[in-house]
Amino acid sequence: MTEGLLLVISGPSGVGKGTLCKALRQALPELGYSISATTRPPRPGEQNGVEYLFLSREDFAAKIEKDEFLEWALVYGNYYGTPRAPVERDLRRGKDVILEIDMQGARQIKERFPEGVFVYLLTPSLEEQRRRIEKRGTENTASILDRLGKVQEELKHINWYDYVIVNDKIAAGVDKLKSIITAEKSRVTRNRKWLDKLVKASKGEKN
Amino acid sequence: MTEGLLLVISGPSGVGKGTLCKALRQALPELGYSISATTRPPRPGEQNGVEYLFLSREDFAAKIEKDEFLEWALVYGNYYGTPRAPVERDLRRGKDVILEIDMQGARQIKERFPEGVFVYLLTPSLEEQRRRIEKRGTENTASILDRLGKVQEELKHINWYDYVIVNDKIAAGVDKLKSIITAEKSRVTRNRKWLDKLVKASKGEKN
Repeated sequence: MTEGLLLVISGPSGVGKGTLCKALRQALPELGYSISATTRPPRPGEQNGVEYLFLSREDFAAKIEKDEFLEWALVYGNYYGTPRAPVERDLRRGKDVILEIDMQGARQIKERFPEGVFVYLLTPSLEEQRRRIEKRGTENTASILDRLGKVQEELKHINWYDYVIVNDKIAAGVDKLKSIITAEKSRVTRNRKWLDKLVKASKGEKN
Repeated sequence: MTEGLLLVISGPSGVGKGTLCKALRQALPELGYSISATTRPPRPGEQNGVEYLFLSREDFAAKIEKDEFLEWALVYGNYYGTPRAPVERDLRRGKDVILEIDMQGARQIKERFPEGVFVYLLTPSLEEQRRRIEKRGTENTASILDRLGKVQEELKHINWYDYVIVNDKIAAGVDKLKSIITAEKSRVTRNRKWLDKLVKASKGEKN
């Protein structure tokens, strides 16, 4: 069986990763995904096991020890990680998986899954970026400036991503992600196995 | 201005390249294309300047001399070539261009345009392949066997293509080609110029 496609979505805080990924999963309900684990406290309305798996620092550390994360990172003082087992199981079963992961984590995933597809989301402009972070209203000014600085830093390092999407309108973003999935499945490099079979079969054919 | 995307479609004789490309051009009327020149005689119903530019061997040779072809090849005793000027003009103007070219020619194009997107079409099976060639009814048996042998040979050399599409249903094929165009336009490597600008602009921003 052909392995599933691993699609990793990154982008600066406030770019709308979560909203876009949710919309994509609605458009492609067969898509596997992983609920990240985190030690950060839930925001109002967030439920354990829905937005995140909320773990204590002790539990998180134990899982790191047991190598139960595909990647993990310390971001703004909190730990975030992607449980390994469900992702690897889905891929093995031929199910495509989408992961929403920051740049640090995406980099770790790339080392384990060089054949993954890495997409970086951008807002139309950094001004827009700043407005979105401010609008969310849960951050203080220092934290906002800290994050904008991080965006500038990240932009310098996105060259190892495969795709960049300006996340303007949700529908357009979903369309682009769907196109990327479709296109990637048609890549010669992802079809070598059965193509080799076809070559062998055609050699055996009696003309 | 961003250069247009050059999409090159190859595939064995009888795979339905022409039909698929025509359907894609109907779906994307803004797509540029090139009418190939050939020295082969027109088939019934083919018009000069529509399916092909039908040239005498003398005229074709003169155009080769003047480097007026993007690629040219000798296939089954006839010359085929892609006029250079209209393609280069479209690309410069930011217009995407689709070319329907055999493997020999595609290889030449790849040398001039390594940033082109190369797609190889396959029929669901070689049996199907044989049926399609026979159905067209314009070939004798020797020529059919010759072409099937060529398919086997080509299959061994498609690794330098970017994409492979099994050309089963036209609508699905068009959808895949559209997805490939959309995805390619989102590639980080094709967006370096404005991304670099964004990095510079964000540095100049007053926080």
